[in-house]
Amino acid sequence: MEHPLIREETLRWFCEQVLTKLEVPKADAQVVTDVLVLADLRGIDSHGVARLGRYVAGLKEGFMKPKDASRTVRETKATALVDGGQSLGQVVGKRAMDLAIRKAKDTAVGIVAVRNSNHYGIAGYYSLMALEHNLIGVSMTNAGPLVVPTFGRTSILGTNPISLAAPAMKEKAFVLDMATSTVPRGKVEVYNRLGQSMPHGWAVDETGRSSTDPARVLNALAKRLGGGLLPLGGEGEDLGGHKGYGLALMVDVLCGVLSGAATGLQVYADEKKPNVGHFFLALDPTAFRPLDEFRRDMDRLVRELKDSPKAQGQERIYVHGEKSFARMEKFRKEGIPLDPKVVDGLKKIGTDLGIAWSA
Amino acid sequence: MEHPLIREETLRWFCEQVLTKLEVPKADAQVVTDVLVLADLRGIDSHGVARLGRYVAGLKEGFMKPKDASRTVRETKATALVDGGQSLGQVVGKRAMDLAIRKAKDTAVGIVAVRNSNHYGIAGYYSLMALEHNLIGVSMTNAGPLVVPTFGRTSILGTNPISLAAPAMKEKAFVLDMATSTVPRGKVEVYNRLGQSMPHGWAVDETGRSSTDPARVLNALAKRLGGGLLPLGGEGEDLGGHKGYGLALMVDVLCGVLSGAATGLQVYADEKKPNVGHFFLALDPTAFRPLDEFRRDMDRLVRELKDSPKAQGQERIYVHGEKSFARMEKFRKEGIPLDPKVVDGLKKIGTDLGIAWSA
Repeated sequence: MEHPLIREETLRWFCEQVLTKLEVPKADAQVVTDVLVLADLRGIDSHGVARLGRYVAGLKEGFMKPKDASRTVRETKATALVDGGQSLGQVVGKRAMDLAIRKAKDTAVGIVAVRNSNHYGIAGYYSLMALEHNLIGVSMTNAGPLVVPTFGRTSILGTNPISLAAPAMKEKAFVLDMATSTVPRGKVEVYNRLGQSMPHGWAVDETGRSSTDPARVLNALAKRLGGGLLPLGGEGEDLGGHKGYGLALMVDVLCGVLSGAATGLQVYADEKKPNVGHFFLALDPTAFRPLDEFRRDMDRLVRELKDSPKAQGQERIYVHGEKSFARMEKFRKEGIPLDPKVVDGLKKIGTDLGIAWSA
Repeated sequence: MEHPLIREETLRWFCEQVLTKLEVPKADAQVVTDVLVLADLRGIDSHGVARLGRYVAGLKEGFMKPKDASRTVRETKATALVDGGQSLGQVVGKRAMDLAIRKAKDTAVGIVAVRNSNHYGIAGYYSLMALEHNLIGVSMTNAGPLVVPTFGRTSILGTNPISLAAPAMKEKAFVLDMATSTVPRGKVEVYNRLGQSMPHGWAVDETGRSSTDPARVLNALAKRLGGGLLPLGGEGEDLGGHKGYGLALMVDVLCGVLSGAATGLQVYADEKKPNVGHFFLALDPTAFRPLDEFRRDMDRLVRELKDSPKAQGQERIYVHGEKSFARMEKFRKEGIPLDPKVVDGLKKIGTDLGIAWSA
């Protein structure tokens, strides 16, 4: 089905109306909206406005607080522990990354761990914030269990993303923003809707073995029979699945254990009281070398990769973030293509709250 | 062929004799030896004493300086830039990680970037150092080009490893120590020796496409026709190869660009003057929460993973570092199994330098 193109401004206006109607202060509603719309602009539609319903539910049911109740619990010159107070993850996340950035400006590095937060949207939003200050930014979060450890049969870890952004000069900034699973759950759902077989290495069914049947995997997950996504590297150790599993676990150590948030199965053990943990780092390259030298060498490395010979049948080598920056430019000009079902979902949210779809 | 078991002490004595004979001061010879032997003890034999010849060659040819010429070039409370002065990578690496640890004790976090260094052995050696101080340790290094970017045909990036170690309480510490390629080059060489086909997803040949023929891949690499190892996630984007590529690039940004070392193809562009970069981070968990709470939650997360249901046909779920700690215990008791060819190589080095194999 054709995807209608929606103006960025329309989406922003609508999301802000919805959130303020649910008693989120205007400035915070703008932050949440900014994170959601940026995901769509960058083409990560699984984390875009399609998820507005999740936040609406959280606010209505009360496990996401509309007023920011986050506070800094412990602090040193270079570090801080923030308790999110069950506020909106994006509001907590932005506040925590702002703090990491301030610390990096003062002390060359800032590390902020967050506990007691909610889903914070795309990890890349917060690492990108560092670029505006010519800093390197790192952002990670744990999440509800969806990933099966190597040789396991049930999902224990989240898709625990890692994002790192670093400024370049003439080239686009390097923006890695990756889940540590092979694919997101949404991709299994797409294959299920299309009735297609998945490649091996994406997911396991209730036996814990790699499955090509998306319906079986989703059914096993829904009925809590077992199964889930495979870590980057796939099943077993032959293609490095234990490495993806290790990265997911590393993220849980830095986000969950370090902050005292929940970890593994506990993150959403009480669905009415999630305890998500985040990890933010900002680092000032000028503590190591002049900014222009850093940015010039970023350009050189990026060019070396992009200009290198292409594999048979390929025309282009990408650097991380590049496709997303291109999408942003295009979607800002032409509008953001949204699945009609997503638009219907938004309209439904609007109707329930007495908000018209378009201003 | 049966692998003879060699006593740890024998190996240490021999390596130290070789290095001191080549004018490495005794204390530094002990450091290099410690890194090499720890690799063998942990079962990472590709980075153990089998590589002694590489350091002997570097010292003889002069591009590894026997006397530590490293110096701290720039410093803030939480960060430092170290110039390795082309000294032995292990000596530079240990000194830099020691500095990161001192900073973490003072300032909660220490980040040290290193330029102008040499091959530093296993990344895990330096992250493990942090555990003795109840800190979280991170260690990364760039390396000679061996990994092909997604959609590329020639190797540009190194196998650029990531290591993170975090202390637990009753459980073994979590020690992730992984190359960002699917497999190390050594694994392709093993399959070549055995005349076996490799799985798809390990390496590409000169066309840039995934190959199952180890001889073809190694030949293409040797003749510089193209080819190389695939990043974690394999060929293309279907199984997440672009994520492994992104992790390898992230490591080069933090090790090469941040420090002003070489990056990508430039790391060994002049084989007589490599310019390897490292990145070390030490982080004090007590800046965030009491140590015992941190360690207790590490235990809980580890137990949750290990006690979870196993995949069909599997009996055990591992946590990273666990297999290596078990090997250490076994090899310390029984001796380290070494490939007879490796023993022959060591004896040859000894003969050339007038050092008997065993004290």
